[in-house]
Amino acid sequence: MSQHAAVLFANDAFYLAFTNRDAEAMEALWSANPSVSCIHPGWQAVVGRRDVIDSWRAILGGSNPPQVRPLGARATLLGEVAVVVCYEELESAERLLVATNVFTREGGTWKLLHHQAGPSPLEPAQMREADPETPVQ
Amino acid sequence: MSQHAAVLFANDAFYLAFTNRDAEAMEALWSANPSVSCIHPGWQAVVGRRDVIDSWRAILGGSNPPQVRPLGARATLLGEVAVVVCYEELESAERLLVATNVFTREGGTWKLLHHQAGPSPLEPAQMREADPETPVQ
Repeated sequence: MSQHAAVLFANDAFYLAFTNRDAEAMEALWSANPSVSCIHPGWQAVVGRRDVIDSWRAILGGSNPPQVRPLGARATLLGEVAVVVCYEELESAERLLVATNVFTREGGTWKLLHHQAGPSPLEPAQMREADPETPVQ
Repeated sequence: MSQHAAVLFANDAFYLAFTNRDAEAMEALWSANPSVSCIHPGWQAVVGRRDVIDSWRAILGGSNPPQVRPLGARATLLGEVAVVVCYEELESAERLLVATNVFTREGGTWKLLHHQAGPSPLEPAQMREADPETPVQ
């Protein structure tokens, strides 16, 4: 598997852990770097590994965590760091979110260093028209 | 100057170019990497150096480009790549934006590879209370 494919695989694994409400998998996906950070939609920035993991446990353990599916992911690699930009389709939401996911390679595995998601103007159907390579599941 | 300080200096230069409506400076601040990307608030992702630069020219040349000031910037360095998380204070806006700025070092200079800004729940005064090191100008 190329490193480009490996980064996109790690990006998919992130959204799978989200959708499966799998807090253990989510924790394992994040870098050991103590300076990891995460900006959930509408939240202020969460900084530091412990607080980031705790924020995910709160979201995934909540009464109604969203199902999230990535669309149109694009990865840019710079050595041991990669930046992925993708859209997020939340079930029952009319508009997509748009996200930045920064990965770093640790022990041969791509791990999340930073995540930001926020509103986008796109509806799911528009994204599929704009990027026909996006799989429609 | 340490590389950590140099990244924060580049981050300040980005917001200075924004506030000064200086499209030439803005273009010079972006990486030569053809895969640069930018997610302006409420926009879909802009991908590719030409489209990113064009988007900035449109914003900075518009009739009412915002004055933007960074608050509480934090940088995480991984070799030749750095991730900066900061808040953005727009004049006359009640809430701050929150941003991810990814830099890469090219020819000894930190250049922007990716930017995303989106809404945050914080008011400017809350940010100053939470981070008293943030200079109040």
